[in-house]
Amino acid sequence: MSEIKKIGVFTSGGDAPGMNACIRAVVRTAVFYGVEVVGIRRGYQGMLESDFWDMDARSVGNIIHLGGTILKTARCTEFMTDEGTEKAYNNLKEYGIDALVAIGGDGTARGAERLSNRFKIPTICIPGTIDNDLYGSDFTLGYDTATNTVIEAIDKIRDTAASHNRLFFIEVMGRDSGCIALRSGIAGGAEAVLLPERATGVDELISKLSVDAKNKKTSSIVIVAEGDKSGGAYQLAEHVKEKFNFYDIKVTILGHLQRGGSPSSFDRVLASRLGFAAVKELLNGKTRQMIGLRGNSIVLTPLEEALNASHFKLEDDLMEMVSVLSI
Amino acid sequence: MSEIKKIGVFTSGGDAPGMNACIRAVVRTAVFYGVEVVGIRRGYQGMLESDFWDMDARSVGNIIHLGGTILKTARCTEFMTDEGTEKAYNNLKEYGIDALVAIGGDGTARGAERLSNRFKIPTICIPGTIDNDLYGSDFTLGYDTATNTVIEAIDKIRDTAASHNRLFFIEVMGRDSGCIALRSGIAGGAEAVLLPERATGVDELISKLSVDAKNKKTSSIVIVAEGDKSGGAYQLAEHVKEKFNFYDIKVTILGHLQRGGSPSSFDRVLASRLGFAAVKELLNGKTRQMIGLRGNSIVLTPLEEALNASHFKLEDDLMEMVSVLSI
Amino acid sequence: MSEIKKIGVFTSGGDAPGMNACIRAVVRTAVFYGVEVVGIRRGYQGMLESDFWDMDARSVGNIIHLGGTILKTARCTEFMTDEGTEKAYNNLKEYGIDALVAIGGDGTARGAERLSNRFKIPTICIPGTIDNDLYGSDFTLGYDTATNTVIEAIDKIRDTAASHNRLFFIEVMGRDSGCIALRSGIAGGAEAVLLPERATGVDELISKLSVDAKNKKTSSIVIVAEGDKSGGAYQLAEHVKEKFNFYDIKVTILGHLQRGGSPSSFDRVLASRLGFAAVKELLNGKTRQMIGLRGNSIVLTPLEEALNASHFKLEDDLMEMVSVLSI
Amino acid sequence: MSEIKKIGVFTSGGDAPGMNACIRAVVRTAVFYGVEVVGIRRGYQGMLESDFWDMDARSVGNIIHLGGTILKTARCTEFMTDEGTEKAYNNLKEYGIDALVAIGGDGTARGAERLSNRFKIPTICIPGTIDNDLYGSDFTLGYDTATNTVIEAIDKIRDTAASHNRLFFIEVMGRDSGCIALRSGIAGGAEAVLLPERATGVDELISKLSVDAKNKKTSSIVIVAEGDKSGGAYQLAEHVKEKFNFYDIKVTILGHLQRGGSPSSFDRVLASRLGFAAVKELLNGKTRQMIGLRGNSIVLTPLEEALNASHFKLEDDLMEMVSVLSI
Repeated sequence: MSEIKKIGVFTSGGDAPGMNACIRAVVRTAVFYGVEVVGIRRGYQGMLESDFWDMDARSVGNIIHLGGTILKTARCTEFMTDEGTEKAYNNLKEYGIDALVAIGGDGTARGAERLSNRFKIPTICIPGTIDNDLYGSDFTLGYDTATNTVIEAIDKIRDTAASHNRLFFIEVMGRDSGCIALRSGIAGGAEAVLLPERATGVDELISKLSVDAKNKKTSSIVIVAEGDKSGGAYQLAEHVKEKFNFYDIKVTILGHLQRGGSPSSFDRVLASRLGFAAVKELLNGKTRQMIGLRGNSIVLTPLEEALNASHFKLEDDLMEMVSVLSI
Repeated sequence: MSEIKKIGVFTSGGDAPGMNACIRAVVRTAVFYGVEVVGIRRGYQGMLESDFWDMDARSVGNIIHLGGTILKTARCTEFMTDEGTEKAYNNLKEYGIDALVAIGGDGTARGAERLSNRFKIPTICIPGTIDNDLYGSDFTLGYDTATNTVIEAIDKIRDTAASHNRLFFIEVMGRDSGCIALRSGIAGGAEAVLLPERATGVDELISKLSVDAKNKKTSSIVIVAEGDKSGGAYQLAEHVKEKFNFYDIKVTILGHLQRGGSPSSFDRVLASRLGFAAVKELLNGKTRQMIGLRGNSIVLTPLEEALNASHFKLEDDLMEMVSVLSI
Repeated sequence: MSEIKKIGVFTSGGDAPGMNACIRAVVRTAVFYGVEVVGIRRGYQGMLESDFWDMDARSVGNIIHLGGTILKTARCTEFMTDEGTEKAYNNLKEYGIDALVAIGGDGTARGAERLSNRFKIPTICIPGTIDNDLYGSDFTLGYDTATNTVIEAIDKIRDTAASHNRLFFIEVMGRDSGCIALRSGIAGGAEAVLLPERATGVDELISKLSVDAKNKKTSSIVIVAEGDKSGGAYQLAEHVKEKFNFYDIKVTILGHLQRGGSPSSFDRVLASRLGFAAVKELLNGKTRQMIGLRGNSIVLTPLEEALNASHFKLEDDLMEMVSVLSI
Repeated sequence: MSEIKKIGVFTSGGDAPGMNACIRAVVRTAVFYGVEVVGIRRGYQGMLESDFWDMDARSVGNIIHLGGTILKTARCTEFMTDEGTEKAYNNLKEYGIDALVAIGGDGTARGAERLSNRFKIPTICIPGTIDNDLYGSDFTLGYDTATNTVIEAIDKIRDTAASHNRLFFIEVMGRDSGCIALRSGIAGGAEAVLLPERATGVDELISKLSVDAKNKKTSSIVIVAEGDKSGGAYQLAEHVKEKFNFYDIKVTILGHLQRGGSPSSFDRVLASRLGFAAVKELLNGKTRQMIGLRGNSIVLTPLEEALNASHFKLEDDLMEMVSVLSI
């Protein structure tokens, strides 16, 4: 067993549903094993300001179902300077925090790598981002919830779509990653999905929609990731409008509602398992690892490897399915 | 009792949650009283094309909970010509339809008024539109569901808002009516609501948000009706951005998802009551009436009166509450 | 304007969705008008223990959408003794609380009447109970949310019902009041609704179900209020099982999940309006009133009158509709 | 490529959310590859009655989001006789159906194995059951949706639980499998989970609840699988009541609402992938396989192997987590 006496836990970067369930798991597992646990508010910013919270089992009561993060989050540039990193470490040291669990996305993991590399503080990262764009886990916290949020929107639009000749463009999150767009497009039964990872020309889209119209589809739904190269949903709608004057074209921009909401069962279980395992692995002497779920197993990936790997995760069969299943 | 033998029922204009529950009530009440009932598909367009469906009690099984309308809907300009109206009436007559229940918004009621005025076919209108902009009923079908849809979106955004210094603009439906914006703004706890009925200058909004910032509100949500005079949510966001550089400003355009979704309990009960009463009133000899709910009572308003009345429905206390309750 | 300087607000009895939205409205309206406001935790029990919380506008931030009550609730018998009432009053007086807003059901209102009658402390009651069994308001806080919760359950059961020959009994809340059962039965499209207010014999139920079976209904849903005289859902299922061996009979007991959940748009607006108006009326010198919504108007009813009136609220048309609309 | 010309698809046994999404994927993939596809209504019963439906791409429009199964389902004993199996096969042959996709649980797979073993008709099984009790796939269709349904119920109960000293027993589905109970217990933050796979004595439960009470938990939620050996939730409540008179004990029996509801994003993607792959594998000459998802890969398991394997699937870490995370 390790010498770890006080674990610091924090969330950083964009918040994601499931972060609270994960904090709960970290805190209660630490308490269960007789280790102290400190919540660091607002991520790296909170480290720089010693914004610490001594937590116990009751601190995380009744939060498993809440979206957002009770530890708040922030983006912090000062930490990324050498002075910033040192100041953060000194604050941790002064408070007796001798190990870290970092919950967040790519930027969070880079910060954790920086800190643990330079100051050798045992650190485990938990992938928490709705974009599912991290290497080391099949799923990141919040991704399942976000796709459920998107399909609820699609379902509602489908109700009204079925009564009219209409073409709907729905813009979803994903600046660099088409994961949300692709999975929710499949699950929502969309006619087309436009992703940052793949250039779909406007011509290709128009051609697909023309075939659908010939096949007597009376309405169509197109999912557009915000990072798609052909411009956002509004711009696409403009392009397409010229060709399809028989369609009434409508646009929805889901925006930040995709980040919120009560986490799904899947995300809560994932969050609980990763938080639980992260503390156990720290106590087992592990450090500088990304912890994740592969299949049904908890796996560790060295942080350096995880950060350098491509996180391209679009399942091969899904892209093919978009066109086959929407005939 | 009347001589009515065959009632035609149709939905027209924009679809609204609760229309199916209403169709079900009309059909089953007619069947119960031994009257035939015919579904007219795609509103006035379907009248012109004799797109008729002989319905029975089983035709409306298992639809009470579905959004949209199984009778479809359409906008139809031909009907509004004298020839169109006559053709429609002749098709109805030929098929033996001797009374009508029309479900829809303002345009639907105008069409029904036109037809029943000219050809004396007994007609009752049921107010069905998410905008709540009809005279004759405290609530129109779909309005309650739409506001529930909007507050679910606001709640999700609130989760992420609480973790950051952020200002959110959420654009909701309502070209001429601020009903959805106002009620969902109150129910969502929004900091400000911008309506078509009232000019809120950008300056006034900025002033309110400045006070909030001083009062240590860390995030704010502004609801903008699409018909607001200061431009849509995007344009407002641009204006405000210049003044609030400490806020991260985000925009959501809910669009047509507000039209869909399973109707709320309130809308289903309302739809059932109005559909049930509409048939009974027709059989009692009533015609050219808008049927509605006032308080807990079913009331009739002559169509002509309903169409000429102002449908300005913003409850006095609500507008005042927006600013008082968001301090 | 009155001399009121410090308002106490509390929730008591069974909790109901919308109580938090109401507390928020009371607190912020008081603050807006420059009056102090104190939260009394756990209702009358908290009065006896001086469990007081000085609240400000920020105390009620981010709670409008939460079920339950941040002021907690309790049932308290000691308060109903003469000594208890006096002790409670002395605690209020000592803390400077010179007016009360009481949120709760029948028992809460009786307690408030007792206190304000004996000690002349200005008091307004807000009807908060999912049962809708109070006189003075068309709707009580939580009722709309509860019926939405019930119909979501019915809708899910309907999915599976449609695939099998099945008869479902769903037991809902309502020991003395059939309001939840009736409205959710209508909105859920139930084949029968059994209420405490009306004796439906098992024979009558069996006869209705037999007719449905002849009419080729393949599945049926029966809503049973817990206070129904023929026994709960399980007992009914037993009785019916003997007659319908071709049906697979299933029972669901919804229980306390009907008390929870995020309040609906309707309940949040109602809660906000009543809380806002309650404070204004107190400041206008009103006391010993039940405040409620009738139609679209806020109305006051003297507490004594409200408590003595029959609160039988089943809308006449609804009971008739249950059988007509489920043919 | 195979000689397959006409694929029959059916659902059988208990229905599960995602079955419609799966039927859609099977039908459209077949159409895409130029193969005819026939829906067999009510499973094996429909085979015996030649209840066939020639489907095309439009037959499965607008169903991806619906619970239940448009092909209906039934339990059928006649098929399990030698004569029944032969009659079913002859009906299939006569209609030209030369391959099968069977969607359902254990009994469905046994029937498919029986038919394909005896008559060599190419057959792929897709695991569809909310219980997750089949070998060959990490997840079965409907399981994710069912656990989401359960946690929504738990969340609502938690709202009211937090206001009172209360102990809640929630009975969930699972006669032989504790999968739903365990995952929803973890995701719902339950204090204890009682499963058929493991005997938890009433004494053990009482001891855990006593510790919680000492740790100042003010309310507790216990999840009971219907197949738990200590009796259902009501019986447990009775036993526990004697020991905990300071708790108000409440029971909820979720029942068949767990089978319904719109499938989750996860279930729709799973259903689409398995349906898509099933047709491709049939066309590739595969037969008598259970198709499933392991990790992120589609895998085939010979039917015989799948049916003989233990389907005990409780993840090791989850059981341990129940007690650690609810301290």
